[in-house]
Amino acid sequence: MTADPSTEKTAAVGIVGGSGYTGAVLAELLLRHPSVRLACISSEQLAGQSVHAHLPRLRTDLAFCTHAEVGKVDIAFVCTPHGQAASIVKRLLEDGVRVIDLSADFRLAADLYEQWYAPHPHPELTPGVYGLTELRRDEVATAQLVANPGCYPTAALLALTPMLPLGLLDVIIDAKSGVSGAGKVPTSRTHFCAIDSDLMAYGIATHRHQPEISQGLRPETTLTFVPHLVPMQRGISETIYVRATETPSVAELRALLHAAYDGEAFVEVCEAVPELKDVANTNSCRLFVTLDEGAGRIILVSVIDNLMKGAAGQAVQNMNVMFGLPEHEGLL
Amino acid sequence: MTADPSTEKTAAVGIVGGSGYTGAVLAELLLRHPSVRLACISSEQLAGQSVHAHLPRLRTDLAFCTHAEVGKVDIAFVCTPHGQAASIVKRLLEDGVRVIDLSADFRLAADLYEQWYAPHPHPELTPGVYGLTELRRDEVATAQLVANPGCYPTAALLALTPMLPLGLLDVIIDAKSGVSGAGKVPTSRTHFCAIDSDLMAYGIATHRHQPEISQGLRPETTLTFVPHLVPMQRGISETIYVRATETPSVAELRALLHAAYDGEAFVEVCEAVPELKDVANTNSCRLFVTLDEGAGRIILVSVIDNLMKGAAGQAVQNMNVMFGLPEHEGLL
Amino acid sequence: MTADPSTEKTAAVGIVGGSGYTGAVLAELLLRHPSVRLACISSEQLAGQSVHAHLPRLRTDLAFCTHAEVGKVDIAFVCTPHGQAASIVKRLLEDGVRVIDLSADFRLAADLYEQWYAPHPHPELTPGVYGLTELRRDEVATAQLVANPGCYPTAALLALTPMLPLGLLDVIIDAKSGVSGAGKVPTSRTHFCAIDSDLMAYGIATHRHQPEISQGLRPETTLTFVPHLVPMQRGISETIYVRATETPSVAELRALLHAAYDGEAFVEVCEAVPELKDVANTNSCRLFVTLDEGAGRIILVSVIDNLMKGAAGQAVQNMNVMFGLPEHEGLL
Amino acid sequence: MTADPSTEKTAAVGIVGGSGYTGAVLAELLLRHPSVRLACISSEQLAGQSVHAHLPRLRTDLAFCTHAEVGKVDIAFVCTPHGQAASIVKRLLEDGVRVIDLSADFRLAADLYEQWYAPHPHPELTPGVYGLTELRRDEVATAQLVANPGCYPTAALLALTPMLPLGLLDVIIDAKSGVSGAGKVPTSRTHFCAIDSDLMAYGIATHRHQPEISQGLRPETTLTFVPHLVPMQRGISETIYVRATETPSVAELRALLHAAYDGEAFVEVCEAVPELKDVANTNSCRLFVTLDEGAGRIILVSVIDNLMKGAAGQAVQNMNVMFGLPEHEGLL
Repeated sequence: MTADPSTEKTAAVGIVGGSGYTGAVLAELLLRHPSVRLACISSEQLAGQSVHAHLPRLRTDLAFCTHAEVGKVDIAFVCTPHGQAASIVKRLLEDGVRVIDLSADFRLAADLYEQWYAPHPHPELTPGVYGLTELRRDEVATAQLVANPGCYPTAALLALTPMLPLGLLDVIIDAKSGVSGAGKVPTSRTHFCAIDSDLMAYGIATHRHQPEISQGLRPETTLTFVPHLVPMQRGISETIYVRATETPSVAELRALLHAAYDGEAFVEVCEAVPELKDVANTNSCRLFVTLDEGAGRIILVSVIDNLMKGAAGQAVQNMNVMFGLPEHEGLL
Repeated sequence: MTADPSTEKTAAVGIVGGSGYTGAVLAELLLRHPSVRLACISSEQLAGQSVHAHLPRLRTDLAFCTHAEVGKVDIAFVCTPHGQAASIVKRLLEDGVRVIDLSADFRLAADLYEQWYAPHPHPELTPGVYGLTELRRDEVATAQLVANPGCYPTAALLALTPMLPLGLLDVIIDAKSGVSGAGKVPTSRTHFCAIDSDLMAYGIATHRHQPEISQGLRPETTLTFVPHLVPMQRGISETIYVRATETPSVAELRALLHAAYDGEAFVEVCEAVPELKDVANTNSCRLFVTLDEGAGRIILVSVIDNLMKGAAGQAVQNMNVMFGLPEHEGLL
Repeated sequence: MTADPSTEKTAAVGIVGGSGYTGAVLAELLLRHPSVRLACISSEQLAGQSVHAHLPRLRTDLAFCTHAEVGKVDIAFVCTPHGQAASIVKRLLEDGVRVIDLSADFRLAADLYEQWYAPHPHPELTPGVYGLTELRRDEVATAQLVANPGCYPTAALLALTPMLPLGLLDVIIDAKSGVSGAGKVPTSRTHFCAIDSDLMAYGIATHRHQPEISQGLRPETTLTFVPHLVPMQRGISETIYVRATETPSVAELRALLHAAYDGEAFVEVCEAVPELKDVANTNSCRLFVTLDEGAGRIILVSVIDNLMKGAAGQAVQNMNVMFGLPEHEGLL
Repeated sequence: MTADPSTEKTAAVGIVGGSGYTGAVLAELLLRHPSVRLACISSEQLAGQSVHAHLPRLRTDLAFCTHAEVGKVDIAFVCTPHGQAASIVKRLLEDGVRVIDLSADFRLAADLYEQWYAPHPHPELTPGVYGLTELRRDEVATAQLVANPGCYPTAALLALTPMLPLGLLDVIIDAKSGVSGAGKVPTSRTHFCAIDSDLMAYGIATHRHQPEISQGLRPETTLTFVPHLVPMQRGISETIYVRATETPSVAELRALLHAAYDGEAFVEVCEAVPELKDVANTNSCRLFVTLDEGAGRIILVSVIDNLMKGAAGQAVQNMNVMFGLPEHEGLL
């Protein structure tokens, strides 16, 4: 098997923390990308070992380096767990490297971060530019530090943001996620026999993605967020129940979504309820809106691949914006 | 492999429509039941053919008979699709056979049935005794016609009924179901490749189980019901979001559930969020309640095996009640 | 939820090592068994904690005890990993307790055990009576120590033993197993995302079940055994390719199987290729034999539920034989 | 969502039969391909309807056309079932269109085709150039009609062809396939509940891919081929048991594979047993060889994605060869 054939690419990028699910998908995307060169992938545990031996899908001759060895690239993607990312990001920024952080460390303002996670080691750097590309494209373009959104908030905010003018009073997000969202570390919870044929709610009203979603809504909106673990590897499907000050017709609701996303490469407004299979392994979000007339409630459905639009795909989309490349490059 | 070893059982029962998922599970339960004898299983398509050859799990020498040949049993279980069941039930009742109907044909009053299904051919027989055993035990005991509840309503009403004194204002049921709920007839929707790694909402605010749930609530309660198809064979998990006139503490909410179900063999109030695997292949319903204090909302989780407590298991439970047998006989 | 309703059972049994998959299934079977009482379940890690809290499917008020506290029962089931079992078994036998050991510690003679596992701490006790019930019923009946067979060997030897008169020259067993066979300890190998949509051969020609199968064949038979891990929780399906001195007709091959198993409650000779779903959660083995005439080869297919006929179910079957109970009691 | 952004591609291709699994994957590859333009996709049933509406993953404004409307393209891919393909292929060839036929219609000589399928309507066109790219690259380059290999034979022949110099005496292929190989038409066999948690052998020694494999071996080699259906969507894993005149060391066996495939973009010789996940959604075949020294047997493992290297991916690989493009273009 021959290695990455594209050797004339000029922009160089690196991945800090390449041994998890997100890092591996990101590396696959970057190796295939026509305009950038993946210069390094780090893993503290696997440093010095062949990337291809551990992740045979990746066509590369690279060996894993240490986190500290990632430098002198145009953009670095940080895929370490939250808490570990902050200091790495700070060092990279000081070295003049633009950063796309896929952890939660720069998505919230420092005080909110402290409330839901822990005291922030570098509050002066928070928050980064929140990289929900379709909503913050201009800020992303010039950012030194992009906080790549969480998977649940990406699906939620792409659906809810166009509804904001209706005056959202009450929002319930019933989210269903594949298991890759729980990470690669084996636990009794992620054992095949614990997941297969099973389904469970978790983190009811206490999940850390809740404040990330809330900050995209208005303070007066009540929000309930309940994620569920479903027997599949990838994908997030959210059914969102909304009461608003105004409850327009279905046609008007769809028009709001179309106005927001027509012309976008990665968000499609659907006529029928979208399914996960239609976004699996893609960077697309598919949205649907309808009305429960009996109950006077707006119902939205939003589906994404959590490792793509919910993580690595959106990170590449942000990278394209930061480099001034066509936004879909390497993503279709 | 030897046949059903219990030949001294005195009560005789029959199954009308034994080739689907529910009929097969029901037959397995009845063949194993210590106090009843499965006298006949009908299938129009398979009449005359060996039951064991088609359903190798069933230890029986029976051949499928025709629907018309089911008679002279103490209780008949009707497992045909809705619409077909009504006339069969009528004939059986006229023959003096007590009936447990697992279709939807006798769950609603005739006018409601007409609104959601079709004009009812035998409105004078509607509704049957609604066989949610824990809630209607006394009526079931003496009933000639028990309407076995739908799978979604069973999970919903076991959770919601104890909450009724709180004055329910607004209820959202986000339900997730395994594929057996969609029946055994192969369709493009139930193809393995359409279900595996996929998830989709369906029948948003239009599912026929909605009126069945509504009639167990108060007329003034607004109800939204959204079912989802999940890549697993069996099981229903419902996350239920409730606003009520009163919102007591979590301890008080749990006390309501305990008051309703302590001492029940098949409903357990859980301290932690219940999972489907803990009810798979059992007749149990596991319930959990908590409070989203930020949003002032009660959240319930209810899980059952759709083919057991949601269909065949509850039917046997009702049969036990009708025969005056211990309610758990043949079900533990 | 009320506890185990059967309080008048006289024979008492105990489980050593009840927190794994096999122990849990075994406990479920024993709690449901009409003639025995489950007196104790041990787990070193969970000692003192409620069994029901950890394994909600089990209807019992028992708390886990320590291994040492299991005693004064009529039969003890030992479900600890191999290596740990030997000393526990020795102590129980010295206390006058009959033992069914579900580990590998007493399936092989001590020298063979040393070759494939490690030096045996108590070689004088090896081998136990090999509890493949259909083949060793009489010895099991009076045994003090039954070595419950491994899952792969159970499926293999039930298929191959009736073929022995043909003079087996060359046997290839291509086995496919569900993930529960790999145990409950979470590893990178058993993560849902490592198993779902995947399939891999492992332990090619080096799996420790190979000598257990070999000792049921003739020394001169060459045997290749290759197990595969398949994305399902339970079940073993083996396709077995045989060259023999004699190659009779398909009818004669089937007659060999029928002669061996007609009248057996748990082994059925099938006319068509058997499927796992027909034995899931049952103690049955389903067998099929055919001939590849072009290649002059006998092909057998054998399917079992690895946790039932391959472990806990067969253990209960052996217990029934040891107690003089009907062999199928508690297993239909 | 914007349509296919690449409008300057010059070579035009078409798909006959685009509504099945293979056609859809092929269309996805061709829409993403940098050097060709997908000009038309046909489906008799869906003619006139939007492709994107039926297959939302495909970013195209095309509507399905009829089979007859596919013409005036440089290469046509025929994805209809066998039997239907032959006449379509003939017509296209007469129209001067080069054809890659993904059905079985041109893989065998006419007499062999008649023996396993039916009399061939156009025997004068059989066989096409057998498009196992790595083995027939030169013939493919200039072919008018390429018979794209079957999925099972692709995995088998890539593994076995380098072993031919050893003098193969006896070959057993135990193959495991995902369900997409059974096609998109819903049947009782492909229902989710029939596949999930199940596994079954089928077509024992009678599968139509057997003669396709045999013709790549020597006439004197005895071949047994047993496919199994496994609960996963995509992928084929074959464990192949070989007796040969010569049985060299493992090092020599690996050297045979390396000699055949070093430098190939899509075949990799592995040091450890390959897994399906490493080839999912890729055009790669991963091969492993070892020796069962006790039995004197060579064991090979070969894994591919049945819809990619086993169908659409290899078809694109062949197209690249026919167009003189880099062989990996659009496939990495």
